[in-house]
Amino acid sequence: MAQTLSPRLINPTPSAHNPPLLIKDLLTSGVRMAGENPIVYRDLCQHSYATFQQRVHQLAHMLSQQGVKAGDVVAVLDWDSHRYLECFFAIPMLGAILHTVNVRLSPEQIHYTMAHAEDQYLLVHDDFLPLISQLIGRLPDIKSVILCTDQGFCTDPMISRNSDSAFSPPQALAHVWRGEYETLLSEQSTHYEFAEFDENAIATLFYTTGTTGNPKGVCFSHRQLVLHTLTEASTLQQKGMEMLDRDKVYMPITPMFHVHAWGIPYTATLLGCKQVYPGRYEPETLVELLVTEQVDFSHCVPTLLNMVLEHPRVSGDGETVDLSNWKVLIGGSALPQGLARKAHSLGIDVRSAYGMSETCPLLTAAILPAHIEQATFEEQLPWRCRTGLAVPLVNLEILDVDGQPLPHDDESIGEVCVRAPWLTQTYFKEEARSEALWEGGWLHTGDVGTLDETGVLQVRDRMKDVIKTGGEWVSSLELENLISLHPGVAEVAVIGIPDPQWGERPVALVMAAEAQSPVSASSLRQHLKQFVDEGRLTKWALPNQYQIVTEIPKTSVGKLDKKRIRALINESGLNEENFLSSR
Amino acid sequence: MAQTLSPRLINPTPSAHNPPLLIKDLLTSGVRMAGENPIVYRDLCQHSYATFQQRVHQLAHMLSQQGVKAGDVVAVLDWDSHRYLECFFAIPMLGAILHTVNVRLSPEQIHYTMAHAEDQYLLVHDDFLPLISQLIGRLPDIKSVILCTDQGFCTDPMISRNSDSAFSPPQALAHVWRGEYETLLSEQSTHYEFAEFDENAIATLFYTTGTTGNPKGVCFSHRQLVLHTLTEASTLQQKGMEMLDRDKVYMPITPMFHVHAWGIPYTATLLGCKQVYPGRYEPETLVELLVTEQVDFSHCVPTLLNMVLEHPRVSGDGETVDLSNWKVLIGGSALPQGLARKAHSLGIDVRSAYGMSETCPLLTAAILPAHIEQATFEEQLPWRCRTGLAVPLVNLEILDVDGQPLPHDDESIGEVCVRAPWLTQTYFKEEARSEALWEGGWLHTGDVGTLDETGVLQVRDRMKDVIKTGGEWVSSLELENLISLHPGVAEVAVIGIPDPQWGERPVALVMAAEAQSPVSASSLRQHLKQFVDEGRLTKWALPNQYQIVTEIPKTSVGKLDKKRIRALINESGLNEENFLSSR
Repeated sequence: MAQTLSPRLINPTPSAHNPPLLIKDLLTSGVRMAGENPIVYRDLCQHSYATFQQRVHQLAHMLSQQGVKAGDVVAVLDWDSHRYLECFFAIPMLGAILHTVNVRLSPEQIHYTMAHAEDQYLLVHDDFLPLISQLIGRLPDIKSVILCTDQGFCTDPMISRNSDSAFSPPQALAHVWRGEYETLLSEQSTHYEFAEFDENAIATLFYTTGTTGNPKGVCFSHRQLVLHTLTEASTLQQKGMEMLDRDKVYMPITPMFHVHAWGIPYTATLLGCKQVYPGRYEPETLVELLVTEQVDFSHCVPTLLNMVLEHPRVSGDGETVDLSNWKVLIGGSALPQGLARKAHSLGIDVRSAYGMSETCPLLTAAILPAHIEQATFEEQLPWRCRTGLAVPLVNLEILDVDGQPLPHDDESIGEVCVRAPWLTQTYFKEEARSEALWEGGWLHTGDVGTLDETGVLQVRDRMKDVIKTGGEWVSSLELENLISLHPGVAEVAVIGIPDPQWGERPVALVMAAEAQSPVSASSLRQHLKQFVDEGRLTKWALPNQYQIVTEIPKTSVGKLDKKRIRALINESGLNEENFLSSR
Repeated sequence: MAQTLSPRLINPTPSAHNPPLLIKDLLTSGVRMAGENPIVYRDLCQHSYATFQQRVHQLAHMLSQQGVKAGDVVAVLDWDSHRYLECFFAIPMLGAILHTVNVRLSPEQIHYTMAHAEDQYLLVHDDFLPLISQLIGRLPDIKSVILCTDQGFCTDPMISRNSDSAFSPPQALAHVWRGEYETLLSEQSTHYEFAEFDENAIATLFYTTGTTGNPKGVCFSHRQLVLHTLTEASTLQQKGMEMLDRDKVYMPITPMFHVHAWGIPYTATLLGCKQVYPGRYEPETLVELLVTEQVDFSHCVPTLLNMVLEHPRVSGDGETVDLSNWKVLIGGSALPQGLARKAHSLGIDVRSAYGMSETCPLLTAAILPAHIEQATFEEQLPWRCRTGLAVPLVNLEILDVDGQPLPHDDESIGEVCVRAPWLTQTYFKEEARSEALWEGGWLHTGDVGTLDETGVLQVRDRMKDVIKTGGEWVSSLELENLISLHPGVAEVAVIGIPDPQWGERPVALVMAAEAQSPVSASSLRQHLKQFVDEGRLTKWALPNQYQIVTEIPKTSVGKLDKKRIRALINESGLNEENFLSSR
């Protein structure tokens, strides 16, 4: 990067047109490709892509009528729906900003994000009317609330929607109430002349929560989303993946408010796929839609896949459904080999992808090399569960604490840092945190991992959970995996505790398995020593201390809560004989 | 386009990095994806993608050593080779401009293009040394000539390349002679630190010839080529196409100097395909490489496909080769159904794509809808031969003479006009012709055609050959097709001649088929009348006059030479009883 070059630039003739990269062109291209494919919402409604396009135009008219202008923020609080998909297009296509509100946050956090985003227009599902009624007094910028409801879909629209009285507002919202989505939509023209504007215009905004501080606003431009979509389309279709294409049926199981459901609604639209939106994620509905709509492709976190697999209709004792055409991309956290194996036993094709809110999100995918594609499932398994290969235009490095790149030898552990044309360029109105994210000109993922010489990334741990001991980084996840192989161990958590000599030293909290001879610190030491002998673990990674506990603190989504574990150890101290209390 | 909107723009934090869209990232991504796939040059050499990348870095060092800087023009005169592929990357990656010289032009035209492009550095195949020796005196800007030769590939490089004497220059080039490509390359470091620069930097330049005037220089930026590549990658992989993917073997049969071989070397590199470069197109070599390298995918004009199909090893009486895995994309001119049928009878999968030099080139492809993919070949045939569906981000319109869009009804004929993010923004140093290309803010293809309501384009004629009569446009190609269905007709050409009342009126030149009762004007009138009755032809499209001729003038590539036909008619007048002399 030393040189500054002066290449010759394209100098367009005055009449030339150079279209900016805008979301509206994803829609136009998709409608052309889709043919007869429909957009489906639960068992409530379905329509063609042509109708989908007309409804996007109607929504644009409806929002303009409310006063929405370019630069305004329009917030959506809905479950995954055909309406939400329409908002994915119409709001940015007006030059306005789509704020996908994370409805799983606490009311106070939701208030914080809506106030911080300067939301002026709301589209709100019935389920969130009580919440918004409660917050509205502290959201003085809100000018307009439109109701998103599933009521009336199965009955005559003339009866169910003709009078506003059918959808009367809660008292608190009367002054900003504008009526119901479908009713308002039906009054609009089906053609809107969308203008062109700068491709760097902000299209979407949402909030991500960390372990500390307020939620951070992450925004993406039209250009970023178009480039992400083109790359995702090519990647999902390619050999070694083959998860999505025009003739496949797509249903998200990552909420649309979470990094635009990984941007896949945009990609599925570009490809012209049949799309199925399941509303609120209820296992019964998900399984029903998977079967009746013959869904081919979904994406979700491991927990949700597990929830589907555990459903009695999928793996119960009675008659079970056939999911053998289903392909599932797993992100959010690592895909455990056990879960992949369980899915495979039902004929389901699963593999990992990797990214985060700040990265739009796609960075890598577990693309199988040709020789592995032809191998047995057991041989494929580690490849399917790896973090994967960077997709086109993504450049990854593993940086040490000084920001220097480490060798791509599958062993050197550093922070996963990235450059790509679709990374968050700033947290919304957060200067200091934005600079920390981009320290040294690389986006810091907060994950630590390794790269091998062929470019395969393996995330080993979260930066904050990795144990820095004697100048080396030890992965707490790797230690947990190895300890969990001991037959006497039911659960395990490894954290680093401060050490005057080494910086940090690993400590293991172990919950003993029932009906086993009691596990002891010395048997665990013995157990881990074999991995040191085999070269799988360095000697300095061996924990100094083991704590046998009856329960290990977890977060609400079932992950180890290392923050609370650390706090508890700080309070109660360490003692191999003590039981650590929890909750 | 009426409104001017003011959306909010992304405002990056100071340390944020936003990579420009550069060709270097296509290479990096491809190397990661390619695994063990090789780059093959005839039966002379092959190497891995890792080596390919190293050679690109070596070439960058070699060119820098010669003095090449950002903004300089480096011209290549070579047949399709691994060297040319390296130039596709190394030259633009330096910020320099790759001029792919069309070696099929006349020496005077080649001189014009090289002088107009301001070429300073040349890479020249042996075959073109006499030409360059002849031109060098009139190309004073040339500073450096590097020899591209196939000599020495099969022998010990220490012997064949160690002394420059093995490759001594022609007398006329001695003062600019720098040596041989492989020899110079081998001296360079395999790592070059490529800088980032503006994505609107010119990457490539080549010349296109029209019917009048000097060749026109067409240039493309890094941004345009990256966007074209991403879209082409997604399109070639998609359902309804499925022509190219990582596990397929690619060999171009459209020269690399012609619109970068449709940009497919970039796309194949991004996907990580095995690539085979055949040198000069000789039928024997092409067939041999198709078989020995197990080529899956090529692209070419109909004439070249026909040449391969006519080869004795393909359709001779003896033992023939198996090409049943071969897929061929046809462009340059319409794919005749007869040729598609002939290819299909050999198991070859063919279909159309459409574009031109000014459009990078990809605009449309004959993507089959799902229901047609499941149909018989005969039902697919018209779909495979249609001009096709616009690929993502391409917007097509059919404009009338006033620049107004015509209905998408598959009937209204107008000029095919286009907007897309990869269209030539200006002819190189040609203001007036650039403005004509972009009149009214749409790129004018010079083709006339129809769009149907699903967006399928059918090119009907060249703008200059279409007959404008009584305010309507009549396709000369369509009339020729219908007349050719008469059993007494061997060949036919239709042109418009000036008419005081109607503007123009169609005239048909007909060559009678042998061993048939003589064809007459009245039998032709009778023949065409049925199509009017069936509604396939409008009444005003019926030619007033038929000229029975013994030969119809053709161009050097076997197309009807309508320019010469018009000239001959102007000279000799029209007479139904006369034979028109030709040549």
